[in-house]
Amino acid sequence: MIVVLKPNATEKQIQYILAKTKNLGLKSHVSRGVERTVIGFIGPEDVLRVTPLEVFPGVAEVMPVLSPYRLVSREFKKENSQVAITKNIKIGGKKIILMAGPCSVESRKGLLSIARKVKASGASVLRGGAFKPRTSPYDFQGLGEEGLKYLKEASERFGLATVTEVIDPRHVELMSKYIDVFQIGARNMQNFVLLKEVGRTKKPVLLKRGMSATIKDWLMSAEYILSEGNFNVILCERGIRTFETATRNTLDINAVAVAKNLSHLPVVVDPSHGTGKWGLVGAAAKAGVAAGCDGLMIEVHDNPEAALSDGAQSLLPKNFNNLVKELRKISLAVQRDL
Amino acid sequence: MIVVLKPNATEKQIQYILAKTKNLGLKSHVSRGVERTVIGFIGPEDVLRVTPLEVFPGVAEVMPVLSPYRLVSREFKKENSQVAITKNIKIGGKKIILMAGPCSVESRKGLLSIARKVKASGASVLRGGAFKPRTSPYDFQGLGEEGLKYLKEASERFGLATVTEVIDPRHVELMSKYIDVFQIGARNMQNFVLLKEVGRTKKPVLLKRGMSATIKDWLMSAEYILSEGNFNVILCERGIRTFETATRNTLDINAVAVAKNLSHLPVVVDPSHGTGKWGLVGAAAKAGVAAGCDGLMIEVHDNPEAALSDGAQSLLPKNFNNLVKELRKISLAVQRDL
Amino acid sequence: MIVVLKPNATEKQIQYILAKTKNLGLKSHVSRGVERTVIGFIGPEDVLRVTPLEVFPGVAEVMPVLSPYRLVSREFKKENSQVAITKNIKIGGKKIILMAGPCSVESRKGLLSIARKVKASGASVLRGGAFKPRTSPYDFQGLGEEGLKYLKEASERFGLATVTEVIDPRHVELMSKYIDVFQIGARNMQNFVLLKEVGRTKKPVLLKRGMSATIKDWLMSAEYILSEGNFNVILCERGIRTFETATRNTLDINAVAVAKNLSHLPVVVDPSHGTGKWGLVGAAAKAGVAAGCDGLMIEVHDNPEAALSDGAQSLLPKNFNNLVKELRKISLAVQRDL
Amino acid sequence: MIVVLKPNATEKQIQYILAKTKNLGLKSHVSRGVERTVIGFIGPEDVLRVTPLEVFPGVAEVMPVLSPYRLVSREFKKENSQVAITKNIKIGGKKIILMAGPCSVESRKGLLSIARKVKASGASVLRGGAFKPRTSPYDFQGLGEEGLKYLKEASERFGLATVTEVIDPRHVELMSKYIDVFQIGARNMQNFVLLKEVGRTKKPVLLKRGMSATIKDWLMSAEYILSEGNFNVILCERGIRTFETATRNTLDINAVAVAKNLSHLPVVVDPSHGTGKWGLVGAAAKAGVAAGCDGLMIEVHDNPEAALSDGAQSLLPKNFNNLVKELRKISLAVQRDL
Repeated sequence: MIVVLKPNATEKQIQYILAKTKNLGLKSHVSRGVERTVIGFIGPEDVLRVTPLEVFPGVAEVMPVLSPYRLVSREFKKENSQVAITKNIKIGGKKIILMAGPCSVESRKGLLSIARKVKASGASVLRGGAFKPRTSPYDFQGLGEEGLKYLKEASERFGLATVTEVIDPRHVELMSKYIDVFQIGARNMQNFVLLKEVGRTKKPVLLKRGMSATIKDWLMSAEYILSEGNFNVILCERGIRTFETATRNTLDINAVAVAKNLSHLPVVVDPSHGTGKWGLVGAAAKAGVAAGCDGLMIEVHDNPEAALSDGAQSLLPKNFNNLVKELRKISLAVQRDL
Repeated sequence: MIVVLKPNATEKQIQYILAKTKNLGLKSHVSRGVERTVIGFIGPEDVLRVTPLEVFPGVAEVMPVLSPYRLVSREFKKENSQVAITKNIKIGGKKIILMAGPCSVESRKGLLSIARKVKASGASVLRGGAFKPRTSPYDFQGLGEEGLKYLKEASERFGLATVTEVIDPRHVELMSKYIDVFQIGARNMQNFVLLKEVGRTKKPVLLKRGMSATIKDWLMSAEYILSEGNFNVILCERGIRTFETATRNTLDINAVAVAKNLSHLPVVVDPSHGTGKWGLVGAAAKAGVAAGCDGLMIEVHDNPEAALSDGAQSLLPKNFNNLVKELRKISLAVQRDL
Repeated sequence: MIVVLKPNATEKQIQYILAKTKNLGLKSHVSRGVERTVIGFIGPEDVLRVTPLEVFPGVAEVMPVLSPYRLVSREFKKENSQVAITKNIKIGGKKIILMAGPCSVESRKGLLSIARKVKASGASVLRGGAFKPRTSPYDFQGLGEEGLKYLKEASERFGLATVTEVIDPRHVELMSKYIDVFQIGARNMQNFVLLKEVGRTKKPVLLKRGMSATIKDWLMSAEYILSEGNFNVILCERGIRTFETATRNTLDINAVAVAKNLSHLPVVVDPSHGTGKWGLVGAAAKAGVAAGCDGLMIEVHDNPEAALSDGAQSLLPKNFNNLVKELRKISLAVQRDL
Repeated sequence: MIVVLKPNATEKQIQYILAKTKNLGLKSHVSRGVERTVIGFIGPEDVLRVTPLEVFPGVAEVMPVLSPYRLVSREFKKENSQVAITKNIKIGGKKIILMAGPCSVESRKGLLSIARKVKASGASVLRGGAFKPRTSPYDFQGLGEEGLKYLKEASERFGLATVTEVIDPRHVELMSKYIDVFQIGARNMQNFVLLKEVGRTKKPVLLKRGMSATIKDWLMSAEYILSEGNFNVILCERGIRTFETATRNTLDINAVAVAKNLSHLPVVVDPSHGTGKWGLVGAAAKAGVAAGCDGLMIEVHDNPEAALSDGAQSLLPKNFNNLVKELRKISLAVQRDL
């Protein structure tokens, strides 16, 4: 922690700060410049986080030196983490994992049809929402447990793992019986109650970045899950909210490399939400692979015109199939498999 | 709903859209311009929300005409709603309601001391967090039920109503026994499970705007609560996330008038989170009153240097007391009481 | 300047940095913590700004301690600066200055009519664009020198000072003959060529904040003008670009107090651009006065329906007149005149 | 243009709007719904842009249907435009063009050294600033005409085309003698005086997107250049300003496909400014190629530690050389050359 003093800070104010921080068990180095005095603190910064030095008299600014996350950091673990989605499917290694399926599970028949097709195209994980966090209370809220059962059936029939969003801490136990990966949606990235709840399971958690979350916030939310004992976290960049209105969100492609530099966790890109328009999904997916992502999550629907949610950003199975072929070429160009 | 077609849309595509929408029970008006054809739809737009016309062949853009919220809108209710916080305290009328207190309830003694002082200065509602949604899992998470008890005691002793944040749908029943107003924090503004849960009570709900929520999103979240039967919703503007780093958040002062134009619900301003620095709270609070807010929520702490959270943005009781005097003058200037 | 090293920085890397910076004439203090080493530098930071320590091996982060602006800072000048717009009109003191008029000068008759009315309502400065920076090349680009002549005539006839936007460095000399204050528009806030050119005159300059400029960027642009010798700079907050679409811009009300804390220069609020809708101008103007601004710039038009630019955000003269009365009450409440 | 009326709009208000717009030569279609009346206008929308229908009584919202740009649009020209940078170098076709070089031209020797290396690695255009738009007036402002001479020399010696930023309309003629492509920087994207000036030449113009410019704004700025007669415009995505602080800017990778969908102009990606950190440049450059860009602009410096500007984001020549090899593989994977 670095504390920059105001130009007119008095000696008395400096001594007051030094006395207080000494009591907290911190060592300090004072640098007296011509224009400003600066104090550097050495010791556990956690102690300082609950002592708001900003309000001490004479203080102009406080700058943390250490990142606030630990378990998710590269410093904690140097090698890439590989998260086992099922016995056979691992994410975070050379192979890029494809997660695909409808936005919402709408019917048994519809889900099975899509599942079969995305499997044939190369997906290994089936996505599909059973509990939907919709902006409007009047929109389709999902099939609930019935949807989970269809996911389970599709999973068994086609050898696909499944990922679905959890929105209620009271559902965690129930859902555990049906699905392989919990998804935490962007709107719930800082629903810490929910993060702790999935942190107490052993299931992999796909953690979407919040719409206005910095990469640091995102990693802090992951830290919540790890700090409960569950290290099986997969980060998912799905676009952030900016002033641009031509796309639903602005896919932050930089975030892939930044997150992988700061953390050992695998990073997935969601080009469907990252663009909001099916005609842009291909370019964004290719960019994701080129930028080094470990997986892609793509919405696919047999009949986007009739989709109960996110039809505008869903690919037809045949377009998904063509895209996968193109993605394979790019994967090879960056020494990955897909 | 207005559908703008692509310049090269064919007659067949137009007929396809008309046929599909006719089946949904909608009337349509087709305007054929030199450069573009435009179709206007009349009827229940809800039907169209689950039919993503964007993906129909030939469609360039879809523009909704009606706002997606109903119960919160001025069109639903023309007069300002007054929400009864307790029998004697109503918000939404001529009187501007002051909510003040510490960020977190830290101790019985500390809370009682602050409560007494903010009451003496003119506050009628005591704020204080018992369950804290902290960015870091290693930060102070609140006293839990113990904190609620202290709030109850302070409430009874000083004749203050109480507001505290709810973060877990499983806490709603417990908390109902202790406090007067549920606060939904910015991070949970789209935690729809929680919104529904408080919507099923009759207690007032203070709904903070999410960090990157548009005013429309915010009103949609309020709609979740009203649609469950609880009309006692108070909106709270607390700053949005922008590129500016000199302040913790950017207080969106425009949002006060916009929200009051669009909705009948009362609007509170939180200048503490809206700035993040105690030295800026006064100016922001005054701006809030001048802009027409119905209440203010301000963090006050006896010893910000030792606060377990948000010390940097907390006012000392004497500064709060002075601020209230200034706010009274502005209230009078805008024909309000405080 | 504080340099934070990577956890694995070597002694050799540290010595390399120390040797390089010693050559630049800087003293350094090394703090070796358990997790990180931090080096603080004392001496002229300007030297370091052209030496990108970020790229030195072993460096994790570089944090400047001093603000990069000098002449505009409170540290350079403690008291508020008062800028003389004309012999009789000063801004930055107790009196809040009203600047009003049409977005564009559209005709001699129209300008004179508006000028007479805003003067009668209490404005002392007439605004009006003669050279318009329009987003579209096909939109009205202003009357040019003819418009300047009308401004001059209105100025003399009604005893109003004038402010108008300069968009071309080649116009500075010509414009100097006609008007009292140069306005630098938001789009040109970092047109450094233009800033230097007006910096070489002695005329006051109203510097609008750029749409995505931080307060620091804004002050740096002011520094360009002062560093050329012209200290007559007036800052103008006019809203920033955010994700919110209900308003044209998000008026950053916090910026008033922040800019006045960091700088001695007067700060004006432009509620017309800050909201983009005439029905919101009043609330934003009142908030500006309550937050401590030194002036307001408001668009007024006799017939907004026929305005060649910005009709949607222009007030009718009678609404402006009523607003001024309300603003006077708030001014008194904050110990100011208007 | 679609005009949505307020729910309580009167018949008189509707007739008033219809009469006014009829006078402007527009046809209208009125759709009377249960909740709202909507009017669609057919005819030249330009007429409506100077008539702010928003302020007409009874109007709730105005929605333009046509895009405001013409010459830059895909509708104006269906095929991709190829811009001839020199006789032999065209951008916009199958070949992806590499532009590389230092941020600023710092010395003759330095420039020649970098030029030779980037040419050897595969660049065909040399970048380098002679007139620098720096945030601080105290930072290095460029070598001016001397820098242009060095660019010319490097160009002739190594067979490289040159691109350099123009910041002053008075420099256009002078610069035309020395360089091949004018660059308009992000800060000047809406410096319309400058846009018009380069629009009157025949030289190619590389137009960087402004920090907070929507894609529509960016295309409108391009329209300024085309409308003056210069169709040789190259768009350049260089990152936008968001709340994220881990990177200097957020590279908007979606913008590549969006701009290419809306416009026939070539699109270049600048991963150096798009990230601000050399360690992230590679991933962003690869993403750009995968997303379909027509060129890349990358900062390269022999000794980033001593660069007078942007050292932190400059690649060493050997890293650039390695990156080009990787980019070639991705180019092939997307059926392009490089």
